[in-house]
Amino acid sequence: MKPKSLLYEGKAKRLFETDDPQILWVEYLNQATALNGARKDAMDGKASLNNEITALIFEQLKRANLQNHFIKKISKCEQLVEKLEIIPLEVVIRNISAGSFAKRLAIPEGKPLEFPVLEFYYKDDDLDDPFINDDHVKILNLASNQEIERIKNEAYKINKALSILFEAIDIRLVDFKIEFGRRADGTVLLADEITPDTCRLWDKQTDEHLDKDVYRRNLGDLVPVYQEVLNRLNKRFD
Amino acid sequence: MKPKSLLYEGKAKRLFETDDPQILWVEYLNQATALNGARKDAMDGKASLNNEITALIFEQLKRANLQNHFIKKISKCEQLVEKLEIIPLEVVIRNISAGSFAKRLAIPEGKPLEFPVLEFYYKDDDLDDPFINDDHVKILNLASNQEIERIKNEAYKINKALSILFEAIDIRLVDFKIEFGRRADGTVLLADEITPDTCRLWDKQTDEHLDKDVYRRNLGDLVPVYQEVLNRLNKRFD
Ligand SMILES: Nc1ncnc2c1ncn2[C@@H]1O[C@H](COP(=O)(O)OP(=O)(O)O)[C@@H](O)[C@H]1O
Ligand SMILES: Nc1ncnc2c1ncn2[C@@H]1O[C@H](COP(=O)(O)OP(=O)(O)O)[C@@H](O)[C@H]1O
Ligand SMILES: [Mg+2]
Ligand SMILES: [Mg+2]
Repeated sequence: MKPKSLLYEGKAKRLFETDDPQILWVEYLNQATALNGARKDAMDGKASLNNEITALIFEQLKRANLQNHFIKKISKCEQLVEKLEIIPLEVVIRNISAGSFAKRLAIPEGKPLEFPVLEFYYKDDDLDDPFINDDHVKILNLASNQEIERIKNEAYKINKALSILFEAIDIRLVDFKIEFGRRADGTVLLADEITPDTCRLWDKQTDEHLDKDVYRRNLGDLVPVYQEVLNRLNKRFD
Repeated sequence: MKPKSLLYEGKAKRLFETDDPQILWVEYLNQATALNGARKDAMDGKASLNNEITALIFEQLKRANLQNHFIKKISKCEQLVEKLEIIPLEVVIRNISAGSFAKRLAIPEGKPLEFPVLEFYYKDDDLDDPFINDDHVKILNLASNQEIERIKNEAYKINKALSILFEAIDIRLVDFKIEFGRRADGTVLLADEITPDTCRLWDKQTDEHLDKDVYRRNLGDLVPVYQEVLNRLNKRFD
């Protein structure tokens, strides 16, 4: 299999069509962005780290019977995935108060939440990915009632599986963002990526940020931090 | 009955305790505010108009079996209401796209919505009344699941009743904000006010704004516009 025409270049990866209309070739990029792409920096080594991390995590989710788009890793920075019709929703689950949530609701950063809080954001760069509720999802025709239910149920299950996975490597899963897509037959399943770009990960002992907040908040070099996450994952799951 | 100690001075009215611990004395104020009170202007005549309008509307809602706090109008600018424990939620229902909703989601102002869209905002001036979802309502302990269901059901019924009421006076109910409170026995019912301060009202023929947008958007004098709404209501319902 080879990459053919470039389908989409995003902030973190490039998608290519392949000879198989149902398979996409994904190339991770050595680039970090923040503020919806307004801030952008080259970051040598990030592409392969995220490619490896998301591959390992999606494999583990499959073992836990959580369907997802991942097919296989084909090189340091590349992987094959099922081509889906992406639902333009950023689905966020929060286990601990942090970031915009902490500020908006005045719930101190670091406070464990009594139950996982689920949020939808409308994935639309022009609108700055606004926070929306279930009625907005329906009025914007982003997903049907049935799809919304499926997405929420899957998201909660993914949260449980991920929390256990990170717990095993001494990391607290504070919050994360996932995306879902539709197969031609209508099945809705997990797509995109799960990496320190899309999760808040805090070291269990030191509360150290092991995620993109290192870049967002200028706390130091991002690459060694992502490497640390990958090392712990490899040690435990390879 | 007489007003006793001042309980609260808000942006639109003053609440006083009375000899009866279950009854509040409400005085409407000749004042308009926008941007969460950052803009504020004296507005002669507004107090009596809003007092009359909300009294008439709450009476009509009672006739439609929609429970609310209203007891009776006692003077031009004053009324008695049941004292409730206010739930700090601004409950918004939208029938037509307008205002912040139109901008945030790029749904053109004036577009009728396929179904009434319900939104919760956390009533907290310091936080600028942030938009929240059902999970936030629960995590902030603002209302129980059962109360959330009751509030939504009541809000939809109030929307139906209000839409019919305004339709009868050639006005389209674009959107509105309501608040709910708890009785000592836990019953949740409609409180606060329903006035052109809290509704978007468009003339059915001309699309003219008959509400606080006249003030927010500097479209002219607010008082004659509120007077027009009251005149139409009086002509139809008195
Ligand atoms: N299985 C898939 N099929 C089709 N598109 C996908 C799939 N998985 C992820 N995508 C999309 O790939 C795009 C590129 O990723 P990314 O660089 O993160 O873009 P963005 O800057 O839009 O977040 C995203 O828009 C994402 O929704
Ligand atoms: N029946 C009621 N019992 C107790 N408080 C009420 C009742 N109805 C309305 N309120 C409260 O009265 C306050 C005064 O109204 P307003 O001037 O609109 O205040 P605000 O500026 O907080 O919106 C509001 O905080 C509102 O929640
Ligand atoms: Mg992305
Ligand atoms: Mg008010």
